[in-house]
Formats: sequence, structure tokens, C-alpha cells
Amino acid sequence: MNIHKQKIFFNSQMLKKEIQMPLFMDIHKGVDGLTADAVAHAHKKDLEKQGEYGVKYLKYWYNEKDGTVFCISEAPNKEAALRVHKEAHGLMPDEIIEVKEGF
Amino acid sequence: MNIHKQKIFFNSQMLKKEIQMPLFMDIHKGVDGLTADAVAHAHKKDLEKQGEYGVKYLKYWYNEKDGTVFCISEAPNKEAALRVHKEAHGLMPDEIIEVKEGF
Repeated sequence: MNIHKQKIFFNSQMLKKEIQMPLFMDIHKGVDGLTADAVAHAHKKDLEKQGEYGVKYLKYWYNEKDGTVFCISEAPNKEAALRVHKEAHGLMPDEIIEVKEGF
Repeated sequence: MNIHKQKIFFNSQMLKKEIQMPLFMDIHKGVDGLTADAVAHAHKKDLEKQGEYGVKYLKYWYNEKDGTVFCISEAPNKEAALRVHKEAHGLMPDEIIEVKEGF
């Protein structure tokens, strides 16, 4: 394999890896004292921690009244996504489900 | 109020309406025979129906193994979002929660 082909092969493997990174939706229910600021602060902690475990927390949605939070992340596996939450702020989800994005 | 001021007032009210459209996350669990194609087809039906009720289904995530689907929509209220699902394909979620987007 010449250098040019090696480069294409390497790039295609990188792309494949990027495409195949699993997505996880996690759900926190009944979080006490949930406010927009509190959840933004916890999310910031996730962003600071995630690089250690190859995780990217992409987005979250929340409901202040009932204390629900949904977080979507890219992670090598479920355990890595959970570990970020555990070490960043200790607020663990009630559920975490591997998902594919529809569109 | 002169015409110029009226125009600014009207635009700001439109913007306010746009910003304030509630978001809803719904969760379907244990959907029988869930495949990427089946959920894409159901979602297409939502998109065809949603205009009648002022709803926008924005995105969805799914897990084929356990039959979970998460749908995020903009809707005037919970009932409108549910009505689209009911009339489009009849697959009703186990839960629907009003949310705000974190970022």
C-alpha cells in the first residue's frame, strides 16, 4: 500500500470510527431543587470531565417542575458516559439507553 | 403608536411567540417490531399530520433492541403533540414531558 492509499485508508477508518460512536440518552427523574442554573452548572462539570473518558455530552433538556433531565451523549460505551456523570457531579440517571438518531 | 412602532411591536410579539413555543420529549417503550425503517415511516406520518395542529416533530432517537423511541417536538401544548401521534399512526408514548433545551 503506497502512502496515498495508506492516507485514504487511515481517513476512512477515522470516519468509520466517528460515524460508529454510540449515542446514549440518559434520564434523571425527580432531581431535587432542579433549576436552569443548577442543571447548567452540572452540565458544565460534565463538559470539563468528559475528555478523560472519550465522551461528548451533546445536549440536554430539563423540566424544573418535576426535576426531569434528559442528556444525550456520544460515548465509547454506557459505562464511560455514566462515569463522567459520577465523577463530574455525582448525579446518576435513573436510566441510560443506547440510541440511534433518526435524522 | 405610529406605523414604525407598531411594526416593531408586532415583530417582537412574533419573536416572543416563536421563542416561547413549548418543547416536549415523549418516550415510547417496548414498541413491538421496531426497526429503523418502521420508526422512520411513523415519523414521516407525524410530519405529514403535524401542520394541522401547529406541531413540529424535530428529531427522534430509537433503540431497535428494546423498542424505545424518544421524540422531541415543538407544540402549542401536550395534547396537540399527542394528537399528531394518535392520528398519524396511533403509536402513543408512555410518557410526555414538557422540557426546556439546555443549549
